[in-house]
Amino acid sequence: MKIIVLKFGGTSVGTVERIKNVARIISKYSKQKYKVIVVSSAMGGVTNDLIKKSKLLSNDFSLSEYDVLVSSGEQMSCALIAGRLNHMGYKSQSWMGWQIPILTEGRHGSSRIIQIYKKKIMDFLKSGGIPIISGFQGISLDKRITTLGRGGSDASAIMLAKFFKAEKCIIFTDVEGVYTTDPNMIKSAKKISSISYEEMLEMASLGAKVMQPISIQDARLNRIDIDVKSSFKNKAGTLITKRKNISRNKIITGISFTKNDAKVTLVGVKDKPGVAASIFKPLSQNYINVDMVVQNISANGRETDLTFTIKSEDIKKTKKLIKNNRNIDFRNLLINKNVSKISIIGVGMITTPGVTFRMFQALAKKNINIQVISTSEIKISVLINKENTNKAVSVLHKEFKLYN
Amino acid sequence: MKIIVLKFGGTSVGTVERIKNVARIISKYSKQKYKVIVVSSAMGGVTNDLIKKSKLLSNDFSLSEYDVLVSSGEQMSCALIAGRLNHMGYKSQSWMGWQIPILTEGRHGSSRIIQIYKKKIMDFLKSGGIPIISGFQGISLDKRITTLGRGGSDASAIMLAKFFKAEKCIIFTDVEGVYTTDPNMIKSAKKISSISYEEMLEMASLGAKVMQPISIQDARLNRIDIDVKSSFKNKAGTLITKRKNISRNKIITGISFTKNDAKVTLVGVKDKPGVAASIFKPLSQNYINVDMVVQNISANGRETDLTFTIKSEDIKKTKKLIKNNRNIDFRNLLINKNVSKISIIGVGMITTPGVTFRMFQALAKKNINIQVISTSEIKISVLINKENTNKAVSVLHKEFKLYN
Repeated sequence: MKIIVLKFGGTSVGTVERIKNVARIISKYSKQKYKVIVVSSAMGGVTNDLIKKSKLLSNDFSLSEYDVLVSSGEQMSCALIAGRLNHMGYKSQSWMGWQIPILTEGRHGSSRIIQIYKKKIMDFLKSGGIPIISGFQGISLDKRITTLGRGGSDASAIMLAKFFKAEKCIIFTDVEGVYTTDPNMIKSAKKISSISYEEMLEMASLGAKVMQPISIQDARLNRIDIDVKSSFKNKAGTLITKRKNISRNKIITGISFTKNDAKVTLVGVKDKPGVAASIFKPLSQNYINVDMVVQNISANGRETDLTFTIKSEDIKKTKKLIKNNRNIDFRNLLINKNVSKISIIGVGMITTPGVTFRMFQALAKKNINIQVISTSEIKISVLINKENTNKAVSVLHKEFKLYN
Repeated sequence: MKIIVLKFGGTSVGTVERIKNVARIISKYSKQKYKVIVVSSAMGGVTNDLIKKSKLLSNDFSLSEYDVLVSSGEQMSCALIAGRLNHMGYKSQSWMGWQIPILTEGRHGSSRIIQIYKKKIMDFLKSGGIPIISGFQGISLDKRITTLGRGGSDASAIMLAKFFKAEKCIIFTDVEGVYTTDPNMIKSAKKISSISYEEMLEMASLGAKVMQPISIQDARLNRIDIDVKSSFKNKAGTLITKRKNISRNKIITGISFTKNDAKVTLVGVKDKPGVAASIFKPLSQNYINVDMVVQNISANGRETDLTFTIKSEDIKKTKKLIKNNRNIDFRNLLINKNVSKISIIGVGMITTPGVTFRMFQALAKKNINIQVISTSEIKISVLINKENTNKAVSVLHKEFKLYN
């Protein structure tokens, strides 16, 4: 039995007309060689509306009741899809997390799936049925509803693909796939036909926003091919797959950028062993993600400047933690929100020397000053002045010939 | 342990502000001598909106998926109430039908509760918790969601009161109680402080619309006192209870009326044994409720006129069934929608002679012609011309001194 998982995002099921369209897509796949498992998000807007209501009732709404509340959105959309398929003559049925069950480790608001019991769904598939499974939700061991965090329906789809050993998982969304960079900013941005998990991870965490990094990581660990495509257009999307499945002809696969970083500089830090650890320990303990870190060489051997980036929303917390930190001694704390991070990503750079040089030279030619640099095996990121974002992405897009 | 069941209708939980108010009411009762079980409907409008969506997807939407769809409404409202109580410092938790479980006989769209498993809720009550239970829903033996039909949250409340042997069940709604007649029509209509199950059943099925007859019948069979009151005003409501709990001082308790009846007359029916049965059998088989029936005495011994009332929405079906009925022979079929049924209701009439006469005389004085009459032990109904509805109710309200 060849199984395929089709996942539909909130925009794809956002209206009654779109649900009709989704039912047509499911119908098309069910006529092929596959047994189809469908995963759906809540209708677009529903979850946000529910969250808004909960916030009006409490600025600290109970997480366990939050899970009960928001999971109702998927219950609606799944019932509507199954009902539409029934109307079209298909055997189909909605399944909530508790009915399968999909077992999670139990943390409310951001749980992880640990087990999916297959028997009932398998029996239903064998009987010719199309199960419509609610994404984003599961139950804990004590039978309370748990949700997987925002974007959790992707995680549901990937885990279903894993447990049912699906051939493929198709993520239907409101974009046509993954682009070389943001097509809203750069007109010549091009759809990427295939991308490795690793590159996608770098793209996603840097703002490509097509899929949550955690789901890509799960797919990578379980070697599940993901096809990202639009539910509105019948066009090829982007295949996220193993590196070896990808025939390369470009050094760089894509360029991503974020505008919500802040640069933090501690000026005149007393330079002694363990000082960096003393600075980062309380940040880490408070879930503040520290990204690019640069420590200048101490000129006089006693003092140093330390720079790193954080997300803008963490500025207040970070300031407080650093000022209350008695284990460090420094002269000044500077915070600059007027920065953006530009990253070029591609497994091709591993085997191609000189990529870093080409990037820096291209930026220099446009008089764009680089403030901080960080690199990984398949990524080079630079921090620049925010107003240069557009110009920088544009020149790099040309430099690495990513255009159509 | 003294248990009380508080049930909140859709209007009572219709907005975030109203949910805050509901939480205050629950808080008040939980501070009294009772352990409180809460039952909630979906927020007003939510269920209708979901039903509308289902109809747009199919003119014959699958009943089992309909149940999954509409039951999501109660999931939201219960989570919001529990979350609000948590915010106020109470131990509270939402419970869906499947979590308790509330077992139904399994028919989709209009199920009946057959069992409520008490253990989990009892444990929670004993631990000081306030359970917020979703009305309107249960699960079948094969673990599919089943709903109890419109108004089913009342049924949930009554059955919870039964299984948990509650002292009382309070139905919070958007009206202040049950009135002697429609206060929108008759200004002097008065709130009834207590009414017997039997009278309430006659009131409800005739249009008082405060509670579904089926729930009142369940309460009657299980001797559960029901208090109907407004969630918006802190005022005494109407107690629905056993006859012997009610001290009578009025012959008539209330006057109800319906405007959606139609009078059907078969003229010149061949009068032979079994002719009435031949007429009503196909109607009954097609779930058409025949109400008031009058058969005139045959003048010539061969022909008779037969009159009865049906609900207006059944006219088309009734016409067809009668015309296709080969077992009856008649000259003409007359249907008149321009009628309304006025009923006076009261256990007092059992012991008071002359009530019928007073009713007919009062109507005659206002030149209101009575077309059909039907009576039961505690009710007298007459069919009149629809345009006289207001006048008739008004004169009867005065005649039996129901005014404030």
